[in-house]
Amino acid sequence: MADLIAEVFAARLGTGDPPGDDAAQLDAAGRLAFTTDAFVVDPIFFPGGDIGRLAICGTVNDLATAGAKPLAISAGFILEEGLPIADLERIVGSMAQTAQEAGVRVITGDTKVVPRGKADRLYICTSGVGQIAEGVTISGANARPGDVVLVSGPVGDHGLAVLSQREGFQFESDIISDCAPLAEMVQDLLAAVPGVHVLRDPTRGGLATALNEIALQSQVEIEISESMVPVQPSVAAACELLGLDPLYAANEGKMVAIVQPEESMAALAVLRAHTHGADAAVIGAVAGRSQGRVLLQTALGSHRILGRHVGEQMPRIC
Amino acid sequence: MADLIAEVFAARLGTGDPPGDDAAQLDAAGRLAFTTDAFVVDPIFFPGGDIGRLAICGTVNDLATAGAKPLAISAGFILEEGLPIADLERIVGSMAQTAQEAGVRVITGDTKVVPRGKADRLYICTSGVGQIAEGVTISGANARPGDVVLVSGPVGDHGLAVLSQREGFQFESDIISDCAPLAEMVQDLLAAVPGVHVLRDPTRGGLATALNEIALQSQVEIEISESMVPVQPSVAAACELLGLDPLYAANEGKMVAIVQPEESMAALAVLRAHTHGADAAVIGAVAGRSQGRVLLQTALGSHRILGRHVGEQMPRIC
Repeated sequence: MADLIAEVFAARLGTGDPPGDDAAQLDAAGRLAFTTDAFVVDPIFFPGGDIGRLAICGTVNDLATAGAKPLAISAGFILEEGLPIADLERIVGSMAQTAQEAGVRVITGDTKVVPRGKADRLYICTSGVGQIAEGVTISGANARPGDVVLVSGPVGDHGLAVLSQREGFQFESDIISDCAPLAEMVQDLLAAVPGVHVLRDPTRGGLATALNEIALQSQVEIEISESMVPVQPSVAAACELLGLDPLYAANEGKMVAIVQPEESMAALAVLRAHTHGADAAVIGAVAGRSQGRVLLQTALGSHRILGRHVGEQMPRIC
Repeated sequence: MADLIAEVFAARLGTGDPPGDDAAQLDAAGRLAFTTDAFVVDPIFFPGGDIGRLAICGTVNDLATAGAKPLAISAGFILEEGLPIADLERIVGSMAQTAQEAGVRVITGDTKVVPRGKADRLYICTSGVGQIAEGVTISGANARPGDVVLVSGPVGDHGLAVLSQREGFQFESDIISDCAPLAEMVQDLLAAVPGVHVLRDPTRGGLATALNEIALQSQVEIEISESMVPVQPSVAAACELLGLDPLYAANEGKMVAIVQPEESMAALAVLRAHTHGADAAVIGAVAGRSQGRVLLQTALGSHRILGRHVGEQMPRIC
């Protein structure tokens, strides 16, 4: 069994360098980004992706939020006894393909098997190391009054795709996860727009939560306009039906960028030039100093506070 | 709940730098080691340690097998709904203390909660980045005929400690896990003994499995002497009672070192000078080239092949 599992990984992800050792090696110089994520999404296959693609995208995108180019990824697997090898093969294959798409390799890993019932088929933990170019200082703490807020495309697709698949809703076929590695798009952005202050991928808790985190870290007030936030009609309809708010639904292939006002149009153009940012939009601005607050201008023109995500709107979405 | 969990981590492990961002940052130059491990040990508390201490030691020691000094650790937690916060606090506190012992910090992490019954209280995935000093080239592929094989202390303690605790055996109080971070001991060794060829921590599958992996990687025959391998009397007695072989039992605070023959006594002295290597011993030598085989000279003087670990002698031991 152990040999079989090892073969599944070796055939798809290759082996680290040097093969057979407990630690892989890489060369680096300067500032590195380091990040980790645990993935427990249910179900493990969903429209537009699977837990393997999700695990690679999540880690690549977390590195991208620091402006880092991914150098290497590690993957730890917790497998439930009885997981069909075909499912594992499909997931590991998906990881390999996504890693290739992101221009990175999975260079080290570990596998544990737990008894039947003790994991939902499988959990995956990925970590990533990325290189931050000289002069790049991206942080959630860097938003300044006057800055412009952009999002790289419509929000809520991932959350609704997983939820629909899990619950067997009729509209599931219309809604597809946006799960995508954004390293290349972010590198394009940084190359063209030196005045990028903040990057954040709005995953668990969605756009509203990401903006609240940034507002708090930077001690600013962010104001966004509801009508400027792109939402797919199918996602909006599903949210209405289920009483959910797309602003709090998870995304796995979107990036929030906060940039100097004079560079906002350049930033928008660069995002739109990339496949993963074709529907990018300016959605608001940093209004001023505050204790950390997000204001939403509703479609009707009124304002309301867009609070932090309270409770778990959608459990096990990633 | 999410806030409570966040507080447990922040209070004990501190926050990454910069706090609040999805990726932590570190500075590095040159060759890095990168490793990951998933921990699913059952039970999560055992004599001599717990899953938290284990997770730090496992990653620190994997970095040490590359001769690397640990720079940073990441931790991903999969928590079962209903896990007592007191247990989580104890485990995270233990991680913090072990990290301090190892001279490293946990700089980034992630937490997911799964429904009751979907994880055995908690699983932890740790990854580590370490710095390899210039000129250090340690690999399981570097064993050469004539080299001497050392182990840093008695084998089998961890495996038997966890098994005893899990099964409620009477002798459990006598057997304590050896769980310890070995980064400092390994750095001492490398500073004094330039001719270290191989380092390997004999975890799952024990000493026999580690030696088989090295023999295969280096394409050599390794011969060890049963009477020279240190085994605590309590571990030996428990193994006899349970029909287990201590050579295949897991260790979490031991290192196998394979060194040039002329430096073997110096290596032994350095290991013995360290707390974690006080009972280090020379246990054998690399006998010659082969397809990768380990020979055991038994206490009676006969020889037998010490095969690879077949099947899982002890499941969920780490």
